[in-house]
Amino acid sequence: MTEAITDLDKLCIHTITTKPWNIETAISKYSKAGVRGITVWRQWLENRDINTVHRQIVEAGLQTVSICRGGFFPNIDKKARQQAIEDNIRSLEEAAALNAPHVVLVCGADPKQSLETSRQQILDGIFAVLDTARDLGVKLAIEPLHPMYADTRSAVNTMKQANDLCDKIDDPFVGVAVDVYHVWWDPDLKKQVRRCGTKKRIFAFHICDWLSPTKDLLNDRGLMGDGCIPIPHIRGLVESSGFKGFNEVEIFSNHWWQQDQDVFLNSIIETYKRFA
Amino acid sequence: MTEAITDLDKLCIHTITTKPWNIETAISKYSKAGVRGITVWRQWLENRDINTVHRQIVEAGLQTVSICRGGFFPNIDKKARQQAIEDNIRSLEEAAALNAPHVVLVCGADPKQSLETSRQQILDGIFAVLDTARDLGVKLAIEPLHPMYADTRSAVNTMKQANDLCDKIDDPFVGVAVDVYHVWWDPDLKKQVRRCGTKKRIFAFHICDWLSPTKDLLNDRGLMGDGCIPIPHIRGLVESSGFKGFNEVEIFSNHWWQQDQDVFLNSIIETYKRFA
Repeated sequence: MTEAITDLDKLCIHTITTKPWNIETAISKYSKAGVRGITVWRQWLENRDINTVHRQIVEAGLQTVSICRGGFFPNIDKKARQQAIEDNIRSLEEAAALNAPHVVLVCGADPKQSLETSRQQILDGIFAVLDTARDLGVKLAIEPLHPMYADTRSAVNTMKQANDLCDKIDDPFVGVAVDVYHVWWDPDLKKQVRRCGTKKRIFAFHICDWLSPTKDLLNDRGLMGDGCIPIPHIRGLVESSGFKGFNEVEIFSNHWWQQDQDVFLNSIIETYKRFA
Repeated sequence: MTEAITDLDKLCIHTITTKPWNIETAISKYSKAGVRGITVWRQWLENRDINTVHRQIVEAGLQTVSICRGGFFPNIDKKARQQAIEDNIRSLEEAAALNAPHVVLVCGADPKQSLETSRQQILDGIFAVLDTARDLGVKLAIEPLHPMYADTRSAVNTMKQANDLCDKIDDPFVGVAVDVYHVWWDPDLKKQVRRCGTKKRIFAFHICDWLSPTKDLLNDRGLMGDGCIPIPHIRGLVESSGFKGFNEVEIFSNHWWQQDQDVFLNSIIETYKRFA
């Protein structure tokens, strides 16, 4: 039985969840609400001095849990692949500047080539940035994405694939980000989370819910409890495997982004305690 | 290397593909275009005498390839589950009346209960109709559905699950319908198609394409060649496994349903020859 959530000590929110807020507002609002972790999406760092942002995060009593996102390695064009590698190196530097333990990798895919080719390019891309990751002390968290994103966002679509990829790379700096939205349907989930745990490679845990009906492939994720994902069950699997990190609320939602974000933040906290 | 398609001998179209056409128009148009097979969606039989429809199909030189669709067994409500079983029996009777070799099962799921419970109810449902299937000489084709439909349409989302389910039932009247749209992303596809072939349980093969971007979870499928699915490759796997049946074009598309259906039918035939 998964232990109930009684406080906000492990609550982290992704800046994209409250998309209308800039980084300063997000830091201030999360902190005042008692949230303890923040995952910074890189767009929120544009036109900002990163050291100032880091100081603001620390002074607000928050911790940078992850940087989102690196990845997008595959491309039919070789020059674009090289640019992706350079961009991933920048993401690692940003993570280091914010004292974030890892960068989340949305690995990428290119519909103009086979999934097998994209998967090879993902492997090559990770190897190409691994030295930098080690030098900076920042890990890489492969996030398997729901198969509905296999065309353009990720050719890594199951926990098994993420585990297999980690086995191939075999480096303590490469692990997995488990997002309930992407993996809840998988009949192999329990086994693969355990396998992940044995290798101590679960670096992050993301939550939200799957709405019925889902109106948009990308931006119609639900608040915890509004959908059909057994979040406490999956959290239990992840915790049983040894994971002790944050529960990160990552909700892309055209609906919620149009609402008052203070109301939304309150709802996140309420539903986090009741349904996560 | 998959053998190229040079004629329409194995081309079948689902009546839902040309949704604006009623059954009489579909039969007549398909036949005149040289199509040889028709998969009849049950809505097309409403307010029709089924024996008359059968005669029309035969006189047009067509063959009924499948009936779509049975399934939808899971429901948190017991009475609804019983009604689903009765409805599946009617679908088998309709298949027998149209001389269709099998009914395609969209197995179903209920977001108000766990996937495991839904999967058990699917197994129970299939067992409940299996005697009728045998008596009528009509087979049941389990169609694994894309994981984006795991909430309400099917708790069977991979070829492996479909194979495992068939193994549990272990009856020559239960097999699999392979639809490229649902399975193209699966890293385990080749292995599971082979496993299916070894047991001679591939009953049907459906084609269309995955568009980038896909604008609607249900009704934005593409014409062959307009997306990223390696259709000839998957057809090759299926044929290598011993399948000799029809290639069924099943396209749900808000876009195409708004176009002139004669133009659409021409496009289906052209893209079938070039990209399937």
